[in-house]
Amino acid sequence: MRYTLGCSLSYNILSDTTFIFNIQVARLKSLEILSETLTLKPDLKREIYISPDLQNRYLGVNVPAGQFSLEYNAEVELTVHRADPATINETPISQLPLDILPFLLPSRFVSSDRLTPFAQAEFGAHPKGHQRVNAICNWIHDHLTYQPGTSDGETTADESLLKRAGVCRDFAHIGTAFCRALGIPARFVSCYAHGLVPSDFHAVFEAYLDGRWWLFDATRQADLDGLVRIGVGRDAAEIAFSTPYGNMQPVNQQIRIARSDGLGSPPQRTVDAISTELPAPHAGAA
Amino acid sequence: MRYTLGCSLSYNILSDTTFIFNIQVARLKSLEILSETLTLKPDLKREIYISPDLQNRYLGVNVPAGQFSLEYNAEVELTVHRADPATINETPISQLPLDILPFLLPSRFVSSDRLTPFAQAEFGAHPKGHQRVNAICNWIHDHLTYQPGTSDGETTADESLLKRAGVCRDFAHIGTAFCRALGIPARFVSCYAHGLVPSDFHAVFEAYLDGRWWLFDATRQADLDGLVRIGVGRDAAEIAFSTPYGNMQPVNQQIRIARSDGLGSPPQRTVDAISTELPAPHAGAA
Amino acid sequence: MRYTLGCSLSYNILSDTTFIFNIQVARLKSLEILSETLTLKPDLKREIYISPDLQNRYLGVNVPAGQFSLEYNAEVELTVHRADPATINETPISQLPLDILPFLLPSRFVSSDRLTPFAQAEFGAHPKGHQRVNAICNWIHDHLTYQPGTSDGETTADESLLKRAGVCRDFAHIGTAFCRALGIPARFVSCYAHGLVPSDFHAVFEAYLDGRWWLFDATRQADLDGLVRIGVGRDAAEIAFSTPYGNMQPVNQQIRIARSDGLGSPPQRTVDAISTELPAPHAGAA
Amino acid sequence: MRYTLGCSLSYNILSDTTFIFNIQVARLKSLEILSETLTLKPDLKREIYISPDLQNRYLGVNVPAGQFSLEYNAEVELTVHRADPATINETPISQLPLDILPFLLPSRFVSSDRLTPFAQAEFGAHPKGHQRVNAICNWIHDHLTYQPGTSDGETTADESLLKRAGVCRDFAHIGTAFCRALGIPARFVSCYAHGLVPSDFHAVFEAYLDGRWWLFDATRQADLDGLVRIGVGRDAAEIAFSTPYGNMQPVNQQIRIARSDGLGSPPQRTVDAISTELPAPHAGAA
Repeated sequence: MRYTLGCSLSYNILSDTTFIFNIQVARLKSLEILSETLTLKPDLKREIYISPDLQNRYLGVNVPAGQFSLEYNAEVELTVHRADPATINETPISQLPLDILPFLLPSRFVSSDRLTPFAQAEFGAHPKGHQRVNAICNWIHDHLTYQPGTSDGETTADESLLKRAGVCRDFAHIGTAFCRALGIPARFVSCYAHGLVPSDFHAVFEAYLDGRWWLFDATRQADLDGLVRIGVGRDAAEIAFSTPYGNMQPVNQQIRIARSDGLGSPPQRTVDAISTELPAPHAGAA
Repeated sequence: MRYTLGCSLSYNILSDTTFIFNIQVARLKSLEILSETLTLKPDLKREIYISPDLQNRYLGVNVPAGQFSLEYNAEVELTVHRADPATINETPISQLPLDILPFLLPSRFVSSDRLTPFAQAEFGAHPKGHQRVNAICNWIHDHLTYQPGTSDGETTADESLLKRAGVCRDFAHIGTAFCRALGIPARFVSCYAHGLVPSDFHAVFEAYLDGRWWLFDATRQADLDGLVRIGVGRDAAEIAFSTPYGNMQPVNQQIRIARSDGLGSPPQRTVDAISTELPAPHAGAA
Repeated sequence: MRYTLGCSLSYNILSDTTFIFNIQVARLKSLEILSETLTLKPDLKREIYISPDLQNRYLGVNVPAGQFSLEYNAEVELTVHRADPATINETPISQLPLDILPFLLPSRFVSSDRLTPFAQAEFGAHPKGHQRVNAICNWIHDHLTYQPGTSDGETTADESLLKRAGVCRDFAHIGTAFCRALGIPARFVSCYAHGLVPSDFHAVFEAYLDGRWWLFDATRQADLDGLVRIGVGRDAAEIAFSTPYGNMQPVNQQIRIARSDGLGSPPQRTVDAISTELPAPHAGAA
Repeated sequence: MRYTLGCSLSYNILSDTTFIFNIQVARLKSLEILSETLTLKPDLKREIYISPDLQNRYLGVNVPAGQFSLEYNAEVELTVHRADPATINETPISQLPLDILPFLLPSRFVSSDRLTPFAQAEFGAHPKGHQRVNAICNWIHDHLTYQPGTSDGETTADESLLKRAGVCRDFAHIGTAFCRALGIPARFVSCYAHGLVPSDFHAVFEAYLDGRWWLFDATRQADLDGLVRIGVGRDAAEIAFSTPYGNMQPVNQQIRIARSDGLGSPPQRTVDAISTELPAPHAGAA
């Protein structure tokens, strides 16, 4: 599927501010970048950094006081790998590649160590595999209210669980935490999300099953086969779309994604399991 | 300086257990490995993984029920970079390399976001540079009691601060958290530590100042120029010397390090700032 | 029903220790104390304090270094008020007596403010009345494991909820917290508990419904009509059976309760709602 | 000293709301109420409750939808007990009256159990007596920023300590927590405060020393001998000036206190220790 997507961000810079942006689509085999433009006003010097472990594309800019805006546009061709969920098993820890094992560890917002008893009690006896992670998503969807304003940038998965509310970030943190607590590697994914209303940056998570990373969205607000990855990380701390150091105010923020192949959105949510790892599973972290 | 060092670990394995060990010395320009042996009993298949971002050497072993032991021995030549602390300034965030910036983010046990007001209140007005991080170490040393048994594997920096007690892991987490809260990149370091009594794995931290990572030990229990690095990470979660998945009991653990060049320990702690980055600062993550 | 009950507590006192004990049965209309003896060895001076709000009987003793033991024995006649649970409604807050309203407030271990979203999500839509509190007990019983060693004297209701485990103290804290979060006054009760195996001090809770305090035991380990009250309070902090200030070691602790009227225990748990408020509901705090 | 004082509170009631107010001055021997009026608009039925342990005066009102206002005015003669701080010692726990001992226990917002290591490390070795509690106030004043908006109704003492900021409520919670952690009974006090700018309800704390409750204000924003007590409790949960159950919006709130004896405010803060217990120390809870 072909998408045009992008974002327009503008800020009122009160004093020198260093921004780290993570808004460009990831370089994946499954994600062909047909065209891509990034415009800064003023046109300041850019620094690029691609993390060697996760291949996230970071953009660093030092911005002086005044107005600042960023516009990003891309057209991409997304190919997803599909499979019957019933055929996807969990990978025993003893067979996990060593570079996957760090995604079993707790991280700042994914307090999987604290949530281990909770996860074991709710899902420990559930049949294993893709269906178990799907059951986790159902549980989160049924037990939490999607409610902007209930969390902030310091909210952890265990706190969200008690608050019974959150946004996509929090839903993804809980899903990630429950997976790790059950011995299933899981990681946080930021993306452009087709079908999300209103359009915004979205957060979902991936679980590592049967040698491949599979996408899950506990909010059920977007099409799983319409998620165009930006970054992947241990949790939201690593891949915030904007990390500013300085004194500034966001002014405007617009995120967009649309089909560009003249084809409509699928009439209903796919029942397939969806992965963006192509063609062979597990070729490094990408 | 030349050291012989190593560890002997033994376990009673109750059921199949997957171990991830991080006990081999790091591959650094400043750390020449003259010889190295690693013996497993039984001699099980080993998997090796070196993390692309931080160059940690992980060893994975699947161990069946029964007795299991690991013995590691190495001889190394450690060369440290020394400088007058008074000459070492902080690097403004706007000049930090992008691959260093992740070490400003909070992580599972380094809750720097929660500790920002505390750090700003105590050290915000302190003259910047190596001396500020040294002041942080002095503060930790003066305000916390080194006391085994006061923390466990889930204790975070903010919790340690309220408990006013901890072990090397906790001292390093607080130091790392305070630095990050002040805009100074910092990371957790595990090592063999000459001078530590009783001998054990040790944890210290590094702060990024003037384009280079510098070592700090808030416990003041070891020689800064006698720290032989094993791993480096966001916090203790990433570089535990042993991460077991399964059912087992540790039986014995012995860690050792000694000078092997016939020279004695320095009579008193050095007043130099110490770094293991050689010769040019900041050549990648190592 | 008539019971003989009591406890034997012994301590090794290392240095002067002040004890506050709360182990004597409460003075209630429903609880006739037929006989009562309290023996201290050595026979130290006793101070008695009965709290004016809750009528708890506290015993204060200053104990010098050496051996110390306390033996308490009583025979009591307990009369309970029974009603059909289906007939017991909740009392709207607007009709609650003012002296009952403090039991809607959060307290140290009953973090009802933090648990309000959780309680509302699980029980907000449940039909009101005795059956709603019973549903809370069922939920706790089904979702938590009774497991000594999983909590300590600082564990709060929200922490127990994440740990999915606890002892009677924790089960009672969660029940109390959920009730308060739903606008139902609730308080913590310590007692001698007929039917509890092994015999020990027990903790349950009371909810205020239809003008009367009703007993609930989320652990389901004792007979509701065999609970002989010791103390009642906001949470465990107020009515610990022993609060020592000093340096001492518990040596032995034995708690006992038995029917003394020659009648056996009821063959199965009663389906009645049970209250110890007699005869008219709500006559002060008793 | 004679004061006129009072408050005017108004609310927009969206649906039936039950209010518990705690705004009337306490009935103390040291506080003669010369006149007192309380006006409700509309003039709804009032319920009065005076807590038997602490003698707080609670006012309950059920308010229907619409506008609601409360006006309270009083003239009082306040007599304080003064002493040289240097003469005031701590009371050993073994000599504390049993009705004072509950004020050593942790409560919802006064997490003295968690803060014990911190309090012992900072003040454990400090000379005992009034001066130690004064040192606690100095510490709080020096280490925390008085800053509205940094805390909310669920903030605990340990959280405030990490935030290094708060309002009078938080300063009083930390002072109370440190005292209890050191074995000094302490309680939370709400009051009208002469000298406070801008005028507002104020929160301070009392510590029990040498058989008497002494006033302390870690914010140092009001005159210690101009504090007219409203309520006293374990912490802010018990004596909120307004506890509403229902749906309403505060519209306006005005608090006032002035000297009415024609005498000015003292030119500088008294160096005396101040207590409102008269004439003999420790006659019950008043």
